[in-house]
Amino acid sequence: MKLEKIKQLRKFYKDALFNDVLPFWMQSDLIDKEHGGFITSVDREGKSYNDDKSVWFQGRCLWTFSKLCNVYGVNEEWAKAADEGAKFIKEHCIDTDGRMFFTVTRDGKPLRKRRYFYSESFLVVGFAEYYLLRGRKEDLALAEEYFDLMYRLYRDPASDPFKITPKDSDVRSLRSNAYPMVLVSSAQTLKRASGKNEYYDKIISDVIADMINLHYKEEYKCVLETVYTDGSILDTPAGRTINPGHSIENSWFLMNYSALNDNETLQKQALNILDWSLDIGWDKEFDGIYYFRDLYGRPCEQLEHDMKLWWVHNETLIATLVAHFLTEDEKYEQWYDKAHEYSFSHFSDKECGEWYGYLHRDGTVSHTQKGSMWKGPYHLLRCLILCEQILAAKENGEKLPALL
Amino acid sequence: MKLEKIKQLRKFYKDALFNDVLPFWMQSDLIDKEHGGFITSVDREGKSYNDDKSVWFQGRCLWTFSKLCNVYGVNEEWAKAADEGAKFIKEHCIDTDGRMFFTVTRDGKPLRKRRYFYSESFLVVGFAEYYLLRGRKEDLALAEEYFDLMYRLYRDPASDPFKITPKDSDVRSLRSNAYPMVLVSSAQTLKRASGKNEYYDKIISDVIADMINLHYKEEYKCVLETVYTDGSILDTPAGRTINPGHSIENSWFLMNYSALNDNETLQKQALNILDWSLDIGWDKEFDGIYYFRDLYGRPCEQLEHDMKLWWVHNETLIATLVAHFLTEDEKYEQWYDKAHEYSFSHFSDKECGEWYGYLHRDGTVSHTQKGSMWKGPYHLLRCLILCEQILAAKENGEKLPALL
Repeated sequence: MKLEKIKQLRKFYKDALFNDVLPFWMQSDLIDKEHGGFITSVDREGKSYNDDKSVWFQGRCLWTFSKLCNVYGVNEEWAKAADEGAKFIKEHCIDTDGRMFFTVTRDGKPLRKRRYFYSESFLVVGFAEYYLLRGRKEDLALAEEYFDLMYRLYRDPASDPFKITPKDSDVRSLRSNAYPMVLVSSAQTLKRASGKNEYYDKIISDVIADMINLHYKEEYKCVLETVYTDGSILDTPAGRTINPGHSIENSWFLMNYSALNDNETLQKQALNILDWSLDIGWDKEFDGIYYFRDLYGRPCEQLEHDMKLWWVHNETLIATLVAHFLTEDEKYEQWYDKAHEYSFSHFSDKECGEWYGYLHRDGTVSHTQKGSMWKGPYHLLRCLILCEQILAAKENGEKLPALL
Repeated sequence: MKLEKIKQLRKFYKDALFNDVLPFWMQSDLIDKEHGGFITSVDREGKSYNDDKSVWFQGRCLWTFSKLCNVYGVNEEWAKAADEGAKFIKEHCIDTDGRMFFTVTRDGKPLRKRRYFYSESFLVVGFAEYYLLRGRKEDLALAEEYFDLMYRLYRDPASDPFKITPKDSDVRSLRSNAYPMVLVSSAQTLKRASGKNEYYDKIISDVIADMINLHYKEEYKCVLETVYTDGSILDTPAGRTINPGHSIENSWFLMNYSALNDNETLQKQALNILDWSLDIGWDKEFDGIYYFRDLYGRPCEQLEHDMKLWWVHNETLIATLVAHFLTEDEKYEQWYDKAHEYSFSHFSDKECGEWYGYLHRDGTVSHTQKGSMWKGPYHLLRCLILCEQILAAKENGEKLPALL
């Protein structure tokens, strides 16, 4: 990538971050001044249409506001939002058994608790980044405690203190690639925050081995989200599901780790994941990346299978930029250009700011709201911050920084 | 409606039933000749892409094949499919605690069991109709036993033998209109099968009272799917959700009941439900009926909110035809014509037969498969059979028959 282009893009991302996306959220109903914490279900203009709170997003917003301070310098408004978010999580998002809730009311009463440990994973990255902002040992300790809980649940599901009725019978024993993914990203964040390199590197390499041995399918050129526990293929829509956005997100987690650890084999595997996912994921008729694809091209069950989701495109921008940084291969610059062009011309709301979250297959807007229980100031902001960081490193001739 | 039109339409529906939809299913992988039961996940051409079996659809297919025999005379192929379906349900779809599974493997091993009693509701209508085919008392007894279980679970959820971890905390006590709906339709089917009019009429009128008192909102001109147990409105996307197709289906359940029982108040309420649902449900830009709408026009959360689903249009054809039959009001003929024209020009697969299930908002096809765990030989076939029956009654100057 030419230096001039790098400089222009840096400026473009920084401008989008500080003159579009951040102002949208700061002027929205996001920060709950009455009860603390964050309300992410805001409409096109930023007004709440649902005061219930996503626990994932309490952790994700804590990460975002802490990260902003850690990258761009402490801003009192961001730091205060992080403080209030951290307090809300500690006071309202953790059940008596130590497991976290999934949703709570605006004033912090529990609504729903799920078996999965994604709420916990966002506590981990949120408090790890928050520790780097405020420097209080107990915040790092909390993040580490929850990472250990996640890892224990991954290795020994029976140790879960939340004794919930199993969702599925034991006729089929399956595993999901989402667990290793959040373990790898959380561990990388904690490694950077704690400096316990050896401890987290061991876990990361063990978990990556699971991914590669069980979900990474060289012969099919894809990553499968759900496989039998021995890695064999379940021949149903769930077993055949390819989630290109998820795989692309995973690819930059792995590329970044491989670069920091000089692991060439892993870098090649991560690049394969990116290549395969772009190949099967890109819609050759309408552009953009599909939400779901079937391994054998059989029918997808998800009603939203051919929609274009914002976060998929955020992850693609990061992944293609990282790939181009590491390989200097022109094809990644071309993919990056294509993703950039599609994303900013289709998802950006030029009138009210921020990005739409969901487009129909043909690129028309299907949902005008800017936030929900699943969308908030996370993927897009992370994309803008990280792309700016990657481009800065490139501009300055530095090595790829630790992105997680 | 003019007599000539009635005759033409009757012919059209009968033709669609016997020369398009039924042949599609009979030549597909639907009927499992090896293990009994039904595989509904078939692709555009009718080939299975998922051998797992939906328990809902074991009951629904039992209903369909029995109903076909009961309406059009016993055909050995249909009757055998019903026999094998009934056997598969009894042998593989019921857990040791009496509650039913949600999905099973092709050879009948349990995969998933859910808290809701919809599997049970389709056993009830399936075995009630099957009893009318074969006349075996034990089949009626099974249907009645399962109806009593459903009704007990509705009135006293704590009596559920399936002690599953609650999905939501008790911070909010909510109720769904889907339970009364399946109770009303199942009870009408059982009433017709058993002749126990007084017993089922009492239950039906009690359950309808719940619907009208708690979910039917005259001031907002809609039926709300989920409300607080006292009928008050939960101001979140779930609480504001209007499901026009569901309400329209409900409206003909109630119209048919009101006509058979000369209940004018209920007939007016059922017509209101239809009017309101068509008004808020019809897409004035692209035609067809939306899947979900928000009470206050706030953002919908469901990614599929603006898609056009086949069953919604099947229910609309039945409901508008029934409304026109009962009122002779021209507006219902116009709505019926509009729904008929939209449906057969957008959902019908002229090349491979049957209907697509899912269209994008603009009417283009989003899923080419003809079946799934949620779509099979049920709504469309029921629509074709019932519309033909309604038109026949009209043509012959008879009263509206019992449709359920």
